[in-house]
Amino acid sequence: MHNYHSSMLSKSDTKYIQSLHQKKFRDVENSFFAEGNKVVLDLLQSNQLDCLHIFGLEDWLHDNEAVLRKNYQGPLQVVLQHELEKISGLHTPNQVLAVFSKAHPKPVMPNDKISLLLDDIQDPGNMGTIIRIADWFGINHIICSTHCADIYNPKVIQSTMGSLSRVNILYTNLLDFVNDHNTIKTFAAALNGKDVTTISGIKEGLLIIGNESKGINANLLQIVNEKITIPRLGAAESLNAAVATGIILSHITS
Amino acid sequence: MHNYHSSMLSKSDTKYIQSLHQKKFRDVENSFFAEGNKVVLDLLQSNQLDCLHIFGLEDWLHDNEAVLRKNYQGPLQVVLQHELEKISGLHTPNQVLAVFSKAHPKPVMPNDKISLLLDDIQDPGNMGTIIRIADWFGINHIICSTHCADIYNPKVIQSTMGSLSRVNILYTNLLDFVNDHNTIKTFAAALNGKDVTTISGIKEGLLIIGNESKGINANLLQIVNEKITIPRLGAAESLNAAVATGIILSHITS
Repeated sequence: MHNYHSSMLSKSDTKYIQSLHQKKFRDVENSFFAEGNKVVLDLLQSNQLDCLHIFGLEDWLHDNEAVLRKNYQGPLQVVLQHELEKISGLHTPNQVLAVFSKAHPKPVMPNDKISLLLDDIQDPGNMGTIIRIADWFGINHIICSTHCADIYNPKVIQSTMGSLSRVNILYTNLLDFVNDHNTIKTFAAALNGKDVTTISGIKEGLLIIGNESKGINANLLQIVNEKITIPRLGAAESLNAAVATGIILSHITS
Repeated sequence: MHNYHSSMLSKSDTKYIQSLHQKKFRDVENSFFAEGNKVVLDLLQSNQLDCLHIFGLEDWLHDNEAVLRKNYQGPLQVVLQHELEKISGLHTPNQVLAVFSKAHPKPVMPNDKISLLLDDIQDPGNMGTIIRIADWFGINHIICSTHCADIYNPKVIQSTMGSLSRVNILYTNLLDFVNDHNTIKTFAAALNGKDVTTISGIKEGLLIIGNESKGINANLLQIVNEKITIPRLGAAESLNAAVATGIILSHITS
């Protein structure tokens, strides 16, 4: 039923995957790759993203035949460990690499919900971890400023641990977005704000998280309704942006 | 006053730093390296760690002369950008690399405090982020199982953002440690525990955080006094270990 290719990985396929490590080629091809048993299976089974190609070790393809039969009709390429290493972005490649079409962002309807606004989150690991946190706390929409890390960066994909298919993500100008939704209360992780441990029961709002070193853009911070601060009991200068996102969401949704 | 070396970076220094990328050589040399303006200055100014060698761009050494004069007496090596790239562990090397002696762990006195116990935290980024979180929440002691990532791994050092000098870290058998401190209440991040959002005001305790995929060792989990769970409102299978640590500490210390 599947079209198995067990010949050597071709030069053109190798070049194609390697090109997807770069944003400009992901944009041209409108596709990206994901790696490893867990992430690939999660994305495949989500039925939210079109899978275009699978490159797997023979054992992995064999073990996952049932899932593949159910969720995938495209070409299956058997690869050897050393071929997988050539196309992988991981230090230790993990059984399978799959190419997917990018998602089509859905319209954002932030009413009656908490949505996340990310202002220039630069680190791909933070970006992926924030997507995973959003999925944990039932956040449906993430609105990213145009300078945020690309969600299809391989490091983002791996840090999301499969959550990518369950969160709708949009890139846009955050100032315009907030102004267009000015009936919804905005919150921001910032200094000298309200103690996060005293906030709970929030059902609707836009929570803005700022850049790892610069925080939130001054123009955006100016129009925020409520600043939220995580009390510091020790001496560290700051908290990691993803950790701060998790802490704030945990309190305000409780 | 300083002994400036502005000749080329020697082959032996290059080899020496490159060897410190590996744990076995860090153990033999009892030293490690840190990189970048912020992390290096934080460690230097902490006065907690002996700095053995500094390799910096000429501009950086010049700009930081006052700090260096005050906190450092060893050799200063001027390096060129391409030399720094050769010895750096960073994608984008950042002005300076410094070699420090490892810290001497102090005796752990967990009474009247919250201490963290890490059970096989494997990812260096998580390890460093957890040290930074501990420093934020005023945790003085982290007790690591012997299979945790090495805190002197370059990726750990960079993720701590300078917090390393303010937290006392010990590697030991966690089961023995808990048994030796059985007058202190133990908490564990685990499934089916008490809702974290209902816990606050904890002043003393051992909080155990488990391995990224396997959680907490069964023998250890068995003797824990209280399991703590972060309620899941969405669909993600799990939270990142460092994010979970931050969320739990934020609630229980409030």
